[in-house]
Amino acid sequence: MTGTKTNAGNFFEDFRFGQVIKHPTPRTVSLGDVALYTALYGSRFAVQSSDEFAKSIGYPRSPFDDMLTFHVVFGKTTPEISLNAIANLGYADCRFMEAVYPGDTITSVSEVTGLKENSNKETGTVYVRSTGRNQHGDVVLEYCRWVMVRKRDKASPAPEAHVPKLPDRVDPAKLGAAVPQLDVSKYDFDLSGSKHRWGDYEVGEKIDHVDGMTLEEAEHQTATRLYQNTAKVHFNLHTESKGRFGKRIVYGGVVISLVRALSYNGLGNAFQLAAINGGRHVAPTFAGDTIYAWSEVLEKAELPGRKDVGALRIRLVGVKNLDCAGHPLKTPSGDYAEGVVLDLDCWVLMPR
Amino acid sequence: MTGTKTNAGNFFEDFRFGQVIKHPTPRTVSLGDVALYTALYGSRFAVQSSDEFAKSIGYPRSPFDDMLTFHVVFGKTTPEISLNAIANLGYADCRFMEAVYPGDTITSVSEVTGLKENSNKETGTVYVRSTGRNQHGDVVLEYCRWVMVRKRDKASPAPEAHVPKLPDRVDPAKLGAAVPQLDVSKYDFDLSGSKHRWGDYEVGEKIDHVDGMTLEEAEHQTATRLYQNTAKVHFNLHTESKGRFGKRIVYGGVVISLVRALSYNGLGNAFQLAAINGGRHVAPTFAGDTIYAWSEVLEKAELPGRKDVGALRIRLVGVKNLDCAGHPLKTPSGDYAEGVVLDLDCWVLMPR
Amino acid sequence: MTGTKTNAGNFFEDFRFGQVIKHPTPRTVSLGDVALYTALYGSRFAVQSSDEFAKSIGYPRSPFDDMLTFHVVFGKTTPEISLNAIANLGYADCRFMEAVYPGDTITSVSEVTGLKENSNKETGTVYVRSTGRNQHGDVVLEYCRWVMVRKRDKASPAPEAHVPKLPDRVDPAKLGAAVPQLDVSKYDFDLSGSKHRWGDYEVGEKIDHVDGMTLEEAEHQTATRLYQNTAKVHFNLHTESKGRFGKRIVYGGVVISLVRALSYNGLGNAFQLAAINGGRHVAPTFAGDTIYAWSEVLEKAELPGRKDVGALRIRLVGVKNLDCAGHPLKTPSGDYAEGVVLDLDCWVLMPR
Repeated sequence: MTGTKTNAGNFFEDFRFGQVIKHPTPRTVSLGDVALYTALYGSRFAVQSSDEFAKSIGYPRSPFDDMLTFHVVFGKTTPEISLNAIANLGYADCRFMEAVYPGDTITSVSEVTGLKENSNKETGTVYVRSTGRNQHGDVVLEYCRWVMVRKRDKASPAPEAHVPKLPDRVDPAKLGAAVPQLDVSKYDFDLSGSKHRWGDYEVGEKIDHVDGMTLEEAEHQTATRLYQNTAKVHFNLHTESKGRFGKRIVYGGVVISLVRALSYNGLGNAFQLAAINGGRHVAPTFAGDTIYAWSEVLEKAELPGRKDVGALRIRLVGVKNLDCAGHPLKTPSGDYAEGVVLDLDCWVLMPR
Repeated sequence: MTGTKTNAGNFFEDFRFGQVIKHPTPRTVSLGDVALYTALYGSRFAVQSSDEFAKSIGYPRSPFDDMLTFHVVFGKTTPEISLNAIANLGYADCRFMEAVYPGDTITSVSEVTGLKENSNKETGTVYVRSTGRNQHGDVVLEYCRWVMVRKRDKASPAPEAHVPKLPDRVDPAKLGAAVPQLDVSKYDFDLSGSKHRWGDYEVGEKIDHVDGMTLEEAEHQTATRLYQNTAKVHFNLHTESKGRFGKRIVYGGVVISLVRALSYNGLGNAFQLAAINGGRHVAPTFAGDTIYAWSEVLEKAELPGRKDVGALRIRLVGVKNLDCAGHPLKTPSGDYAEGVVLDLDCWVLMPR
Repeated sequence: MTGTKTNAGNFFEDFRFGQVIKHPTPRTVSLGDVALYTALYGSRFAVQSSDEFAKSIGYPRSPFDDMLTFHVVFGKTTPEISLNAIANLGYADCRFMEAVYPGDTITSVSEVTGLKENSNKETGTVYVRSTGRNQHGDVVLEYCRWVMVRKRDKASPAPEAHVPKLPDRVDPAKLGAAVPQLDVSKYDFDLSGSKHRWGDYEVGEKIDHVDGMTLEEAEHQTATRLYQNTAKVHFNLHTESKGRFGKRIVYGGVVISLVRALSYNGLGNAFQLAAINGGRHVAPTFAGDTIYAWSEVLEKAELPGRKDVGALRIRLVGVKNLDCAGHPLKTPSGDYAEGVVLDLDCWVLMPR
């Protein structure tokens, strides 16, 4: 009877096109999570840091940092989706749709939106659309993700290939659902720490976020457990010491949160992460690495019917052990440059 | 006058049979403790993780993880009971009797229930019954523990020997006081992450909990300080580097919490730790060790008058730097096998 | 356009005498911060640990640990005051004036009260008075601090020199504003963990606080980020590995908090840190160092019109990698002794 009650994770042939997976474990989030989020990343956006600031502009209180919401929703999907994943291939169409507040209970559901066996018959790509909801059933976050998953048995027949059509970028008309109509006249640009509004940024502008932050094993493990993410590579030195890198790999979401927190220095009023258009973890990050960040403004957009906030589409680049004064990204041959660990395309909202 | 105001801890001859010790420091627990508990161990039991889940089955809200209650009660006893202890010899008759909720204030009292000097006249065994209470005076936790404590002076006369009679196991009729009558029809076995109920487990069944978790110094220190546990061996590299192991020793309670959290994978519905029948820290654990766990079902019991939950008596084994597919426990000669760090006999409750 | 939107910090010539700086980022504090404070330092003062204890003597609930308030107020000042600082030269006239409770929102403002260029024309001393306020506008904390700051350009003209007159010590008549009138008859000296009241301490008395605590990188980084302190030397191994010490430096406030928590063993009823008269970080502290502490009672004072609490002026000394049985402080030549890292002169309040 040994072992029959444990979750060995799903292999490629366990997924069915159109399948809906209701993920355990629901999670009530609290101010304890908020304090830990600040302690782990040092984020300084005023809307998320101060209830008084948030209330002054129209929120009922400080909402959660959007990446904290992301981690809670994403963490739940790991036992069913990516326990046997070899690689996290990409994200698309990720939208933050409802603010999360202390006391909310978050659940996650994933739908299999695509399946494609690889030609080696040993792995396949699984596409899912994952949705996080609060206790009222409101969608707080939705995103598409695709991962390369091992097959249990090379001989298993390949399923019919389905590859979902994914948008290059989230339509700006779909942004802002999580942000109430704000009274920008009450937005205190001294307290927020930056004078720069949406109108002050230009397409093509590049910003070196200057600061660097070194990651420790205890920090990324603590962060990743907080989100009940169970991916083994982040936690098990005993196996990873014999693995590909000889050490534990930092959960990519930790790097996104760190880069987002560092981006405060230069994007201090970009208080909401509204959407992730696409993202790639270019190289693994390990404890001891120092993370830097820089951004490029890719696009600017108004939000239909709103004069309070505008959207900036940002390429947010995370780099390790190299400062970002030179905006490192690609080599002349088109490969990612040494040190680049994250290439994230996202929409952020700023007061106008 | 130097030093007269500091606590040097009690030595063996300071304890009196029948003595009652009221421990400092009372502690109001909060959702901050809950977030840290999740961050430190990654626990995923749905009842403790989600207020909505807990309410749906009959709790007023999510109760604290039982081991968090244990640590808070236990931590308070360390300055008076075990500051001069050489070894934590055992636990027995440990019962979780009332759920703890955020905002509760916990205090601890210990009664000396036994004393026995060792033949070397340098140490003795102190037996205590420690009781944790909430602000209403309700007992939340009660346990017996015995520790080997140094004598201040070898020449001090031996007290009359008293060795308390301790039960081999907690009577199942005494379990479940901390669990309200549940409506199991509302228990969502998708959200809990396991389909397996009490009736699905069989005596003799062994479960490898599969996952491993590596411990860091910052993690065990953070956990142990959170519980205001003052045992020096966990915190002081300066002295421990010259000590028996050359390094800090992880608080045994951290290992219990980790093993309990790992046991979710295989015992996902064993949402309450109802009692610890006995426990032994077989070998010390250090930062850098990777902890694995496996369980054996020792006994099954119904609870008198209850059809909602049943009790499983589990041998929960913690192992370091060795996976548990082979259920490592003892060598042919009867000694504990290499790698075994924890041998815990406990009752857990599951929905029927 | 690159880089124009980031904060490069103020250089010496950017400060003006009398200038008032409103610091970002306001911060709503919570029980999550309290749990982390306990987890990071292991503090055990009963008033701050238990709502029931605090209420029994006259508080509405447990106030924040005073040093937690200090860190939150101080952290906000780092981006504008000390990003280009070479040395934190001193503190004076620091008074804790109003208790902070979960849910309060803290903001910081600094006034430049002095400026003096150094003779090398490369640096200057900036004196500020920083004030922390809660959401009602009440001052919770006020302190003077002076730092040595780099000039951007050696050729910049020196400002007129102003050096503020600072008190040697806070007048005891100004202490106690943050402590309500207490009912000391309800103060439980068993639960507080010490029998010793204000009247039991004598001027000249020295107390070795016995315990030692080793610091880890993940711990001091986590603590320092929690307070949104942005000083680079605490977080960036990539640059610090090439710097003066070859490693990250622990934020001095972490050392103060640790020493204050250690002082519980010997000063268990010194529940409020009422004022810091002066302080010096004698030597840097690094991860791996074990911190010990000892105190000398410098002065005793009654508080005008109050019979509930009295003030002890304490010299609180932090020492690394050396126990404090010998009260290490200075060498015969008057220099600080090897190992001393902190020399803090403060007022604490105790029940009479």
